[in-house]
Amino acid sequence: MLGQLRLALAQINPTVGDLVGNCDLIAEVVARAARDGAHVVVFPEMVVTGYPVEDLALRPSFRQASKAAIAGLAKCVFEQGYGDLVLVVGYLDEASDFVNRLGQPQGAPQNAVAIIHDGKIRARYVKHHLPNYGVFDEFRNFVPGDSSLVVRVHGVDVGVAICEDIWQEGGTVSDLKARKPGLVVVPNGSPYERNKDDVRLALVQQRVLELGVPIAYVNMTGGQDDLVFDGDTIVVGADGALVARAPQFENCLLFVDLELEAGTSNPDLVIQEERVPSFSPRSSEIAPRLDDLAEVWNALVVGLRDYIAKNNFETVLIAISGGIDSALVAAIAVDALGADCVHGVSLPSKYSSDHSITDAEELASNTGLHYRLIEIESMVSAFLAAMKLDGIAQENVQARVRGVTLMGISNQEGHLVLATGNKSELAVGYSTLYGDAVGAFAPIKDIYKTDVWALATWRNTQALLRGEVPPIPVGSITKEPSAELRPGQKDSDSLPEYKLLDEVLLRYVEGDEGGAELIAAGLDAALVKRVITMVDRAEYKRRQYPPGTKVSSRAFGKDRRLPITSRWNEGSH
Amino acid sequence: MLGQLRLALAQINPTVGDLVGNCDLIAEVVARAARDGAHVVVFPEMVVTGYPVEDLALRPSFRQASKAAIAGLAKCVFEQGYGDLVLVVGYLDEASDFVNRLGQPQGAPQNAVAIIHDGKIRARYVKHHLPNYGVFDEFRNFVPGDSSLVVRVHGVDVGVAICEDIWQEGGTVSDLKARKPGLVVVPNGSPYERNKDDVRLALVQQRVLELGVPIAYVNMTGGQDDLVFDGDTIVVGADGALVARAPQFENCLLFVDLELEAGTSNPDLVIQEERVPSFSPRSSEIAPRLDDLAEVWNALVVGLRDYIAKNNFETVLIAISGGIDSALVAAIAVDALGADCVHGVSLPSKYSSDHSITDAEELASNTGLHYRLIEIESMVSAFLAAMKLDGIAQENVQARVRGVTLMGISNQEGHLVLATGNKSELAVGYSTLYGDAVGAFAPIKDIYKTDVWALATWRNTQALLRGEVPPIPVGSITKEPSAELRPGQKDSDSLPEYKLLDEVLLRYVEGDEGGAELIAAGLDAALVKRVITMVDRAEYKRRQYPPGTKVSSRAFGKDRRLPITSRWNEGSH
Repeated sequence: MLGQLRLALAQINPTVGDLVGNCDLIAEVVARAARDGAHVVVFPEMVVTGYPVEDLALRPSFRQASKAAIAGLAKCVFEQGYGDLVLVVGYLDEASDFVNRLGQPQGAPQNAVAIIHDGKIRARYVKHHLPNYGVFDEFRNFVPGDSSLVVRVHGVDVGVAICEDIWQEGGTVSDLKARKPGLVVVPNGSPYERNKDDVRLALVQQRVLELGVPIAYVNMTGGQDDLVFDGDTIVVGADGALVARAPQFENCLLFVDLELEAGTSNPDLVIQEERVPSFSPRSSEIAPRLDDLAEVWNALVVGLRDYIAKNNFETVLIAISGGIDSALVAAIAVDALGADCVHGVSLPSKYSSDHSITDAEELASNTGLHYRLIEIESMVSAFLAAMKLDGIAQENVQARVRGVTLMGISNQEGHLVLATGNKSELAVGYSTLYGDAVGAFAPIKDIYKTDVWALATWRNTQALLRGEVPPIPVGSITKEPSAELRPGQKDSDSLPEYKLLDEVLLRYVEGDEGGAELIAAGLDAALVKRVITMVDRAEYKRRQYPPGTKVSSRAFGKDRRLPITSRWNEGSH
Repeated sequence: MLGQLRLALAQINPTVGDLVGNCDLIAEVVARAARDGAHVVVFPEMVVTGYPVEDLALRPSFRQASKAAIAGLAKCVFEQGYGDLVLVVGYLDEASDFVNRLGQPQGAPQNAVAIIHDGKIRARYVKHHLPNYGVFDEFRNFVPGDSSLVVRVHGVDVGVAICEDIWQEGGTVSDLKARKPGLVVVPNGSPYERNKDDVRLALVQQRVLELGVPIAYVNMTGGQDDLVFDGDTIVVGADGALVARAPQFENCLLFVDLELEAGTSNPDLVIQEERVPSFSPRSSEIAPRLDDLAEVWNALVVGLRDYIAKNNFETVLIAISGGIDSALVAAIAVDALGADCVHGVSLPSKYSSDHSITDAEELASNTGLHYRLIEIESMVSAFLAAMKLDGIAQENVQARVRGVTLMGISNQEGHLVLATGNKSELAVGYSTLYGDAVGAFAPIKDIYKTDVWALATWRNTQALLRGEVPPIPVGSITKEPSAELRPGQKDSDSLPEYKLLDEVLLRYVEGDEGGAELIAAGLDAALVKRVITMVDRAEYKRRQYPPGTKVSSRAFGKDRRLPITSRWNEGSH
């Protein structure tokens, strides 16, 4: 016995804390889905509150607001005449009967999904597996659910899981396997990581084969602090084949017409028994996947754009040194915000080379960003007259004078300052606290230096393919990296060659490999020891560094939580 | 049937990552315990690695090193002739048979205790309840144990629990209740919070009454990043009476002679069946508890001292403004490090009042700290000549010039800079990023302004009681607070009166009360809205603020994890 359903999968971009705005967006999407004949609309995880809400979940007033918002949404959609549609909407709920660790009753936050129909919340499902690794703190912020949910929609039994529920064995997946639904829908808040789309599809296909039914996987888009969500909404048919895929990083409403086994389970709730009148299915979009660098570029652009917009800024300010890092950040900012919202300032000292200024000017000319130049010599001299400084102390004054100048312009004109440090620098502490490290957001903090060059070249090539002027000056890409804080200084005076450095960093930071493993892998022992020691000692600097978009499997920040105070010397083990 | 035991409870200060140093310290304590006739020595939680190790637990090389260290310790103690003693030693272990969320086998970290005797690890217990709230991430860093442990020591059956195990119902406490040991020992890594000693004693007494046996609760001392451990090691007899208590914040070896029921359980392991020869018990120390402000003062002193020492610094640098915050930080630093290790610099601008300099000089004279004065006008003028700045942008330049000057001295002379912001300022963002916010450590970041005054007065009173010169100038305590960034500026121009402000902050930050609750509690609605909005908007500043000692039940930092990007407006709910 078969039943048809038209699913509308809402790959949209909610904002954390904007309950009114998010519910307006949801209602608008429901109207569009209804106009196009959808029977079921599936939204991402916690779309009502935005995701992740972190410790806002622990605040009773916020939970109450979320519960009121989902009830209001059900009513609003009904009043707009869409009560027939079945909506699957993520929100923050609470278990009123929860008892805390001291045996006291206490409202407890739950990561939940409401099944909305006919103006009411007809059923709810609570996330069972709470991720508490990497960037996730869900065991801190939620209490888990312990039961599965299957609801009958036009004769088809639809099971629900939330994100992590399908990544772990047991719990919801096992329950659903036993209950034999005809379809499983999975709302997600799954942050982007390089190559994660491959993993997601393989995982969904594995679960489809285990459960023997199609799975619709719905993920959000947009940026939230250091996270960016790439969407990558997919539907896999009962045979394991990819049926539909939404374009990464774009908001869209993906429609999928499915013919499904009906009446397969013993549902918790029957919403509609009668099947929909037979209709001829339309084929769905299967958006091509972006290649690696295109994916990373989009992540960086969306992450920056949303940080700016969602924090109510419009313009950014960047110190343009003529080097590759600031050029890359400027190009990302121009793609994210438009050149008119990007302000660059060149801050040359007496050690700045001529090409620093000409490369900065060329960047401004290529991209159309607002450009100015302020000489820092007079401020640096004032400090050196007031204090006796030499060596690194003197070099750092230049970087910090630039920081003060940037922040002055920012305070005066209202731009948000972008820090231009890359992951290699941040890893080894090759930066000046309160100097080049100033900024509210650091777009490329999770990009190793070797990838900085690769992305710059990629972006320029894209411009050439589109017949546009490449944004990044060739000189910025080809010149030898230098902080230009003393005459003739080169990065290679202080650091290993970046190719080698990044290889050690990738294994140490992402791979958690110890010193002995790195040496066993053929890396030079002195190099390993030197790099690891630099990384460990720079922890205090990273703590004061601004947030920036995570693209790797382990970004600095909440993804990697290490003590500052530590005498563990990994380099000697 | 009774058996006697002399317990030695090691309230000591390990260092995170210093496995060699920690094992040396443990061995030294064992020797002292042996000389004084102890039969059992109990150490704090994870004393071998230090605590908390955070994501170091996830690194295989670190787990291997911990396992090697505990095995080496057992051998070393045996070789020194103390194999007879039974040691209860916390360390990092791993479950080799653990399967991860994708079904793959994987070594998994465990927060464990080894029972050492006769040169060997005779048994181990793994922490069952993993705290994952507040500052704790143990569900992230460890996998839980699932079995209890009772070992027979000289005829007495000794059960083990680790820290959180006794804070939660079920699990280990239930198991031990059923197994009827004659004594329970509890190694802890329990960070200091105001008034927590009351809670700990009541909790231990409650568990004693449930289990019907004495409990020995052993906690560590010392600072670790933003945490400080106050010891507060206690023994509660079977009747619920306090039998012994170690002095807070001091390293000590607390001896307790107990007469215990023997042979009560069915132990997992018999170490010694034969009871010890009868001896006449000595009475134990019951150290008086410190009063509230003395406790806080000690926490701040120990937290700062250990941050400096464990990070291999010796000296600190403080911008001395003549105001109360910097005076308090200087007094704490002098108590922690000695005046000779404290460097103060007065950085007056043209808006600084005369009393700012005289109060700074008086502080230096009272405490004996190294003092210098650097006028900032020439540097400020250089910036204002290079850029057109007015209003707050111009005010901030002064604060940032001070920041650059401080960091210059720090880089040149090797002092660690202390930030002097208090919790009220940090809460509402009343500080200048990269200005007064510079520093590697912020000793009073968890102290509200009203408590800043209370602590200053308390410290001066202590000096008078001891016949010493009070460190903090009376003028710094009594003057009206001002940032002195423009003529005649007062904090009260921008902020509510501190008494009112702190009342709102305490309820909002510590209590997680929402806007509606605060207003219902009788606070002015406009005040509530204004304060909450300031707090929410300052999140980005707090993220870049240095760590500092936690003393409250909710400190800014890992204790309170909120998104920067959030449109939730608590003030309007």
